[in-house]
Amino acid sequence: MTLYCVGLGPGGGRDLTERARDVLASVDLIVGYTTYVSLVRDQFAQAEFACTGMRGERERCAYALEQAVAGRSVAVVCSGDPGVYGMAGLLLELAPAYGDVQIEVVPGVSAALGGAALLGAPLMHDWCTISLSDLLTPWETIRDRLEAAALAGFVICLYNPASRGRKDYLARACDVLLRHLNPNTVCGLVRNVGREGETCRVLTLRELRDAPADMRSCAFVGNVTTRVVDGRMVTPRGYPGEGA
Amino acid sequence: MTLYCVGLGPGGGRDLTERARDVLASVDLIVGYTTYVSLVRDQFAQAEFACTGMRGERERCAYALEQAVAGRSVAVVCSGDPGVYGMAGLLLELAPAYGDVQIEVVPGVSAALGGAALLGAPLMHDWCTISLSDLLTPWETIRDRLEAAALAGFVICLYNPASRGRKDYLARACDVLLRHLNPNTVCGLVRNVGREGETCRVLTLRELRDAPADMRSCAFVGNVTTRVVDGRMVTPRGYPGEGA
Repeated sequence: MTLYCVGLGPGGGRDLTERARDVLASVDLIVGYTTYVSLVRDQFAQAEFACTGMRGERERCAYALEQAVAGRSVAVVCSGDPGVYGMAGLLLELAPAYGDVQIEVVPGVSAALGGAALLGAPLMHDWCTISLSDLLTPWETIRDRLEAAALAGFVICLYNPASRGRKDYLARACDVLLRHLNPNTVCGLVRNVGREGETCRVLTLRELRDAPADMRSCAFVGNVTTRVVDGRMVTPRGYPGEGA
Repeated sequence: MTLYCVGLGPGGGRDLTERARDVLASVDLIVGYTTYVSLVRDQFAQAEFACTGMRGERERCAYALEQAVAGRSVAVVCSGDPGVYGMAGLLLELAPAYGDVQIEVVPGVSAALGGAALLGAPLMHDWCTISLSDLLTPWETIRDRLEAAALAGFVICLYNPASRGRKDYLARACDVLLRHLNPNTVCGLVRNVGREGETCRVLTLRELRDAPADMRSCAFVGNVTTRVVDGRMVTPRGYPGEGA
């Protein structure tokens, strides 16, 4: 049998893919973190919903696998793309213990891509994502990656820039970056992409350091060529005549 | 007026978002690189199509802007996501010279995300994209980014790994990576994602070095924790109990 791991895109609205909609409209059971399930509950009323809180990842995946093996058609939903800080990896790792179940990963528009589109085109050249959550990664590793990315000229997309328990992490990350990047480096900050309360702001790295952020935010740090064009954040790709 | 820059997702098929479909079904004119236009020509027969070849990026964007300013409703289409090595940046940079035209970037599932979903879950931890095309970026910059990404433990997604004029670039990139990474590092190679002739292969870094690749391929290089689970490429996120 097949268990689906489905990306909702940013917000679960019009940036949902057609494949994701077809899968979610066909399953008996939709499993996910409470906030993400609430984004699609009304749209797929044929399904039963099972929600679990933050940090319930392993239980959530185990429950979905048990139900799939028992013969139900099941989808695990994630915001954005399920393969970017989502549930696809954990499901694939746990699946072999549950017997003959195939995992189909249904990709979605990730938070980075959704946020970038709002801001303009910050990710037009080589870029990386770094999660600032140190629940699963030591801060020293995060810090080293920030330094490496800045020195090598990657545009950086920061996931999980802050939370209630990590209020100052965006400031700490910006302090690391400010050792290597100009404080006027063009940056972007988005919140609630594709959801109620969507916001989008272009600012400098110095301003980003002290900007309010939370788990529903994504921050973007440009490279040396990134600039503001008509209020949008744009990293040139380098086409002849571009920026002329 | 609004000019749309629309991502088709990998292949322009079922991974198209609903917003992208709505936009493409509503416009008079769809502009794009010949190969991408051919992916959607039959689906949006109401529109006129304007195709340009490779390296015609500036002309393509200028034509779309001229037509939008003249009052037509226009979409520029890109494979994958328009903000990742696509046309969003160039359109935003050129637009101010054309007067009062707004650019709406409609994000799509990028080649990296589409390819990752096929392979399994390679991008579950911090990752970066690096294009191996040196048409617009000096090889030395590409090489330095490869080294920085490998040393900092990023999973790496290689765009444009080879072309007719750059047959050995994937091998050259792998040689750079092999100086820092174990030759048995788990890698992935996808081709024609979402299109006819789709292929997907999990292999080692040593094998990737000599694997056939072209402009329709994407290569993935794991980090030290990336492993093969039931034939799929999986990078653990690090959840407690994961991989147990």
